[in-house]
Amino acid sequence: MSSPVAAVPHAFLPHLAPVEGVEVLAYDPKDTDILPGGGREVDVLSLPFVAGRWMTRMGEVPGLRAVVLASAGYEHALPYLPAGIDLANAVGVHDTATAELALALILASDRALPTYAHLQAAGRWDRSGVGQRRSLADSRVVVVGYGGIGRALAQRLVASECEVVAVASRERGGDGLVERVHGIEALPQLLPSADVVVLAVPLTDVTRGLLGAAELALLPDDALVVNVARGPVVDNEALRAECAAGRLRAALDVTDPEPLPDDHPLWSTPGVLITPHVGGGTPASYPRMGAYLTRQLTAYRDTGSLRHVVATGS
Amino acid sequence: MSSPVAAVPHAFLPHLAPVEGVEVLAYDPKDTDILPGGGREVDVLSLPFVAGRWMTRMGEVPGLRAVVLASAGYEHALPYLPAGIDLANAVGVHDTATAELALALILASDRALPTYAHLQAAGRWDRSGVGQRRSLADSRVVVVGYGGIGRALAQRLVASECEVVAVASRERGGDGLVERVHGIEALPQLLPSADVVVLAVPLTDVTRGLLGAAELALLPDDALVVNVARGPVVDNEALRAECAAGRLRAALDVTDPEPLPDDHPLWSTPGVLITPHVGGGTPASYPRMGAYLTRQLTAYRDTGSLRHVVATGS
Repeated sequence: MSSPVAAVPHAFLPHLAPVEGVEVLAYDPKDTDILPGGGREVDVLSLPFVAGRWMTRMGEVPGLRAVVLASAGYEHALPYLPAGIDLANAVGVHDTATAELALALILASDRALPTYAHLQAAGRWDRSGVGQRRSLADSRVVVVGYGGIGRALAQRLVASECEVVAVASRERGGDGLVERVHGIEALPQLLPSADVVVLAVPLTDVTRGLLGAAELALLPDDALVVNVARGPVVDNEALRAECAAGRLRAALDVTDPEPLPDDHPLWSTPGVLITPHVGGGTPASYPRMGAYLTRQLTAYRDTGSLRHVVATGS
Repeated sequence: MSSPVAAVPHAFLPHLAPVEGVEVLAYDPKDTDILPGGGREVDVLSLPFVAGRWMTRMGEVPGLRAVVLASAGYEHALPYLPAGIDLANAVGVHDTATAELALALILASDRALPTYAHLQAAGRWDRSGVGQRRSLADSRVVVVGYGGIGRALAQRLVASECEVVAVASRERGGDGLVERVHGIEALPQLLPSADVVVLAVPLTDVTRGLLGAAELALLPDDALVVNVARGPVVDNEALRAECAAGRLRAALDVTDPEPLPDDHPLWSTPGVLITPHVGGGTPASYPRMGAYLTRQLTAYRDTGSLRHVVATGS
């Protein structure tokens, strides 16, 4: 393998370290008239955050060998993947932004920030609810899904004086943040003492409906359910009913259905905070994408293939 | 000194460790008919979070030698302090809750949570602003005031992948969180590169008006000013003008004047987030007050006097 060529969206270029022996050609993903690489043969195509037109036209790029997505999800790209071409997803790139939103959602719910936003809009200095405020500090937070997002969140929670209980698909040893990682089968034993449960798992056959009515019923009164995973991981109707009854609280960046329809009762359910799936979208993703792409181009130069290949076109 | 007696609000009792050789008598601060200690001689009087009636009637408690406030501020207690009685304030008790609110305010502003609260109230799933969102991660945060609150905040910010620039009254060496602590005189040099400035200083002659129009003008466009100190530390009118012009953002738990009047223009200034001085009020303060009181009673038993005595009645 000598002198591979990579076509990279110009927005990523300032965040990419030089990789000796790899020629990088910048392209404007919005310009659909000029091919990434300008018509030259391109070994590796890096797609932008909003994959857009070139995802559906990968096959037009001459010489293409491999594609690096800028999203963790990759199902949407599979139909367009040309035969023999490797596809890698973006691993870890959006963990920081998503963990940050999860923390923001917990703090907003615990410290009643939406209430204060509405009081501010009404121009009212009202401290009457202060005695009812919760604290994130001293909370026991069950983090379900202990991958990149879960660990990035755990780091923030430990610094916020929380007890973090990590849950992953299989039981394993701990790290500097938690003493051990529980297996998902332990969840029913962990829920009754949780102040907060955060869902940060991929949506799979195992995680679909993970928190149903029975699991939600195990949570103590006033517990907070945070979802930054995918809507269907929680039974949204069961969660809505628990919140409507004043028994649980929820902070949801993802819903089921999604987008949430304008007339959906979840919007106005007491104790429910909703953001419209904005977990991954911050400037923090640019330097992390640049670093990831630098590692990918280095791997391609050294081995002739990408890391984290999730599919090969057939 | 043998067998000192302490009168402690019953709400603190579950958080107090037994101190051998100190007799603790619980009292109900809301019952103004029964003296703390029930008429017995009391060496140390612990006052509740809302100091209330017994602060003004300390002189009625027989045998009193020392008083422990549950607030950091103590000016309000001085007029009632009987001659010869030591007064200690609550050191560190509310740092966690206040640092937590500062973090919540930064995240709420950076991730536009008030906007989403209003969209939720309108029942609208609107992702159009996602591209304009900021990130807390990678931000340079200047923390002005590096006492208990400043350090508790720095710990959270470092875990949130920020660069923390600490500023205190005098330059000194760093700790595990920052390489060094800048002296306050360096502030004008530090402001031009700040993404966020957090004020966590006591209000003194030095800190009054610390961020005036000239200092605010040094901040880069879109910088966020967070005040969890006291309103008059910032020139609120100059800050309002910068936010109204769309140049700066603000997140304020304290204002000047305070309470902010219903018709004050700050309520509706774009980019300004206001909470009504709720920084210190969370359940996290109870165990921390209990631990502080345990240390104070131990010190009193061992030395015959409290630590952190800020005044003695004259």
